[in-house]
Amino acid sequence: MQDQHIFFMQKAIELARKAFAHDEVPVGAIIIDANKKIIGTGYNQVEKKQSQLGHAEIIAITKATKKMNSWRLERCWLYVSLEPCAMCINLILLSRIEGIVFGASSPKFGYQLDKEGLISLYRRNTIQVLQGVCQTESALLLKQFFQQKRVKE
Amino acid sequence: MQDQHIFFMQKAIELARKAFAHDEVPVGAIIIDANKKIIGTGYNQVEKKQSQLGHAEIIAITKATKKMNSWRLERCWLYVSLEPCAMCINLILLSRIEGIVFGASSPKFGYQLDKEGLISLYRRNTIQVLQGVCQTESALLLKQFFQQKRVKE
Repeated sequence: MQDQHIFFMQKAIELARKAFAHDEVPVGAIIIDANKKIIGTGYNQVEKKQSQLGHAEIIAITKATKKMNSWRLERCWLYVSLEPCAMCINLILLSRIEGIVFGASSPKFGYQLDKEGLISLYRRNTIQVLQGVCQTESALLLKQFFQQKRVKE
Repeated sequence: MQDQHIFFMQKAIELARKAFAHDEVPVGAIIIDANKKIIGTGYNQVEKKQSQLGHAEIIAITKATKKMNSWRLERCWLYVSLEPCAMCINLILLSRIEGIVFGASSPKFGYQLDKEGLISLYRRNTIQVLQGVCQTESALLLKQFFQQKRVKE
């Protein structure tokens, strides 16, 4: 089970590297269906799209719903290299995704910021969450990106 | 000032009627810029698009960011016939919209459900919220839609 999580998280991290190469905050996401087939992929493109709907999770979910021809992703799991923000968490819940696996934590923008909100939100929807898969690798990529940004500016 | 709010909310309600005509939950939204020019419109298309990204607010924001060629909608206001859900509230905040005016309340899906969450969220981002503009009209449209649905089923 752990091997599977690492395998899919590595795919998400590969996508995060693509974002990095395009000078976007390096976050990548994939969605797998009940048969563990990848049905959606995305990497952060907020600057390219000039829209906050350019988050990796949103792009991956959009592709998955198109592939499934349904907004209901009931037996699907999302892998994302960074803890989702509150907008993405709510889209994940509305899309009825079964579970989330994430890598690096996001103390500033992650939904965990409001501890109580997180619990009540999750309880209402009973979504499964597994955190910290390939955390060091995901976090390092983000660190490198912001270090490089500071050097440039 | 109140007249302006009613004028723009009526535009949002007109869009909600379009959603109704397409057999979608009747919610409409518009965005105005600092000059009070409409720069984005949307009506609910969740079923047509088979995506939770079909919410009226999301469609209006997408159009506005394209028009402005920027994800920053800093001096813009959103008018929406129904209280936004938690996903939309977070997109609104991330997009740096200055204020929201909404019509009908949404006790089930509105972000107000978590009273504390709402307050801390708003405080963090200092967004202005005005509620209950054309509330009766917005709510009646939703009531009629769900009544009609029940008769059909």
